[in-house]
Amino acid sequence: MFIARVTGSVVSTQKVASMTGHKLLVVEPYRLNGETRDELVTTGRTFIAVDTLGAGEDDYVLIVQGSSARLTPETSKLPIDAVIIGIVDSVHIGKQNVYDRE
Amino acid sequence: MFIARVTGSVVSTQKVASMTGHKLLVVEPYRLNGETRDELVTTGRTFIAVDTLGAGEDDYVLIVQGSSARLTPETSKLPIDAVIIGIVDSVHIGKQNVYDRE
Amino acid sequence: MFIARVTGSVVSTQKVASMTGHKLLVVEPYRLNGETRDELVTTGRTFIAVDTLGAGEDDYVLIVQGSSARLTPETSKLPIDAVIIGIVDSVHIGKQNVYDRE
Amino acid sequence: MFIARVTGSVVSTQKVASMTGHKLLVVEPYRLNGETRDELVTTGRTFIAVDTLGAGEDDYVLIVQGSSARLTPETSKLPIDAVIIGIVDSVHIGKQNVYDRE
Amino acid sequence: MFIARVTGSVVSTQKVASMTGHKLLVVEPYRLNGETRDELVTTGRTFIAVDTLGAGEDDYVLIVQGSSARLTPETSKLPIDAVIIGIVDSVHIGKQNVYDRE
Repeated sequence: MFIARVTGSVVSTQKVASMTGHKLLVVEPYRLNGETRDELVTTGRTFIAVDTLGAGEDDYVLIVQGSSARLTPETSKLPIDAVIIGIVDSVHIGKQNVYDRE
Repeated sequence: MFIARVTGSVVSTQKVASMTGHKLLVVEPYRLNGETRDELVTTGRTFIAVDTLGAGEDDYVLIVQGSSARLTPETSKLPIDAVIIGIVDSVHIGKQNVYDRE
Repeated sequence: MFIARVTGSVVSTQKVASMTGHKLLVVEPYRLNGETRDELVTTGRTFIAVDTLGAGEDDYVLIVQGSSARLTPETSKLPIDAVIIGIVDSVHIGKQNVYDRE
Repeated sequence: MFIARVTGSVVSTQKVASMTGHKLLVVEPYRLNGETRDELVTTGRTFIAVDTLGAGEDDYVLIVQGSSARLTPETSKLPIDAVIIGIVDSVHIGKQNVYDRE
Repeated sequence: MFIARVTGSVVSTQKVASMTGHKLLVVEPYRLNGETRDELVTTGRTFIAVDTLGAGEDDYVLIVQGSSARLTPETSKLPIDAVIIGIVDSVHIGKQNVYDRE
């Protein structure tokens, strides 16, 4: 899994029928700042993930990729390869708190 | 999933029998411009995806990869790892509309 | 899927028993030249793929990766993650023909 | 699989129900230093993996990705794509010991 | 699949029970030297793969990744994502022999 920040959303009306009613969010994978090791920074990449948890913009979330994206009750038969499995409260590196949702 | 722009097509006559009749499109993954954050820009990569939705050139589409590419009715038994699951109407980042099909 | 050029072959006699008799080709993924947009260029990467179609050197082929490589009749039980599913006749970008097998 | 160092942990209370009670660790993939070939160095990437072995910070661990992350007794039905399958005691390159847990 | 050179091994005693007795090798993916096109060169990456064929250090091997790593008799139920499916005898690019185990 990886940590990503929710930065937007996608609207698509012409789609595979089973996708109707599923929220599609724009997420950007984050990584630890390798220099300072005290904050998360963007990787500059852009993914689209299905959300079933009610994540909002600027939330940090946990993304699962691949066939395991179908291992949640709401997504078991969907043609998707990325889903949000958790909203992140905090991330700790060593004794340091590098992210806190407050 | 990721957003890609449809830029072309591939013709292949000598192929695995089950692939007969399936449209193969050239798609280029796009990402958010990290500087301006107000437009989608190409990643410079080139993929081939099966289309079942009638996407056309310059359409922005949602691509699913891996085994989930077989989770649509038309592709369930195909030897494919990428399919278009939606044609993108619009992409929103924060309050900004970074793509609109109009 | 991605487009690759067949550039060579691999010989392996000491292998998993089920792999006996399967042709292993060296393939190099290609992408559209992002500057000129009128030719395919190598990505510099090297993969090995199973061939069941009789592809030859310098042929451009369609490669499928992952579990879907097992979705062809000849490869359904093989421990492989890449197979050639088509020999490319031509690739069109916009109105331009960027590859033609002639 | 790849070798990673455990550097932190993630707390998430709002998550897919099946994930309750599973420990989520921050891991950084390591690779052999290509110049000196006598130590492991970080790749600078950040992943989140489920731990079922009691790994602690600064442990080097083996990470499996993809559907195989569901092939352990504790993770068989989880929506995860990365799990720790072993805590590394030592890594040997040629005659050299490049990592030792002591 | 990809070609890799076996460069080392990993010892792990605290691991998922099903992994007991399986040999874990350090492998480095190789690619064709794009300039000279007459030798294989390292990509600088480091992976860990299960070996069931008795590969030794400096052997060049074929690595399969993902769920297909479970498609060999010895690995069908293991939580692994990479296995050696063949020891490479030789690699040919065009008319040139770029690797020979002799």
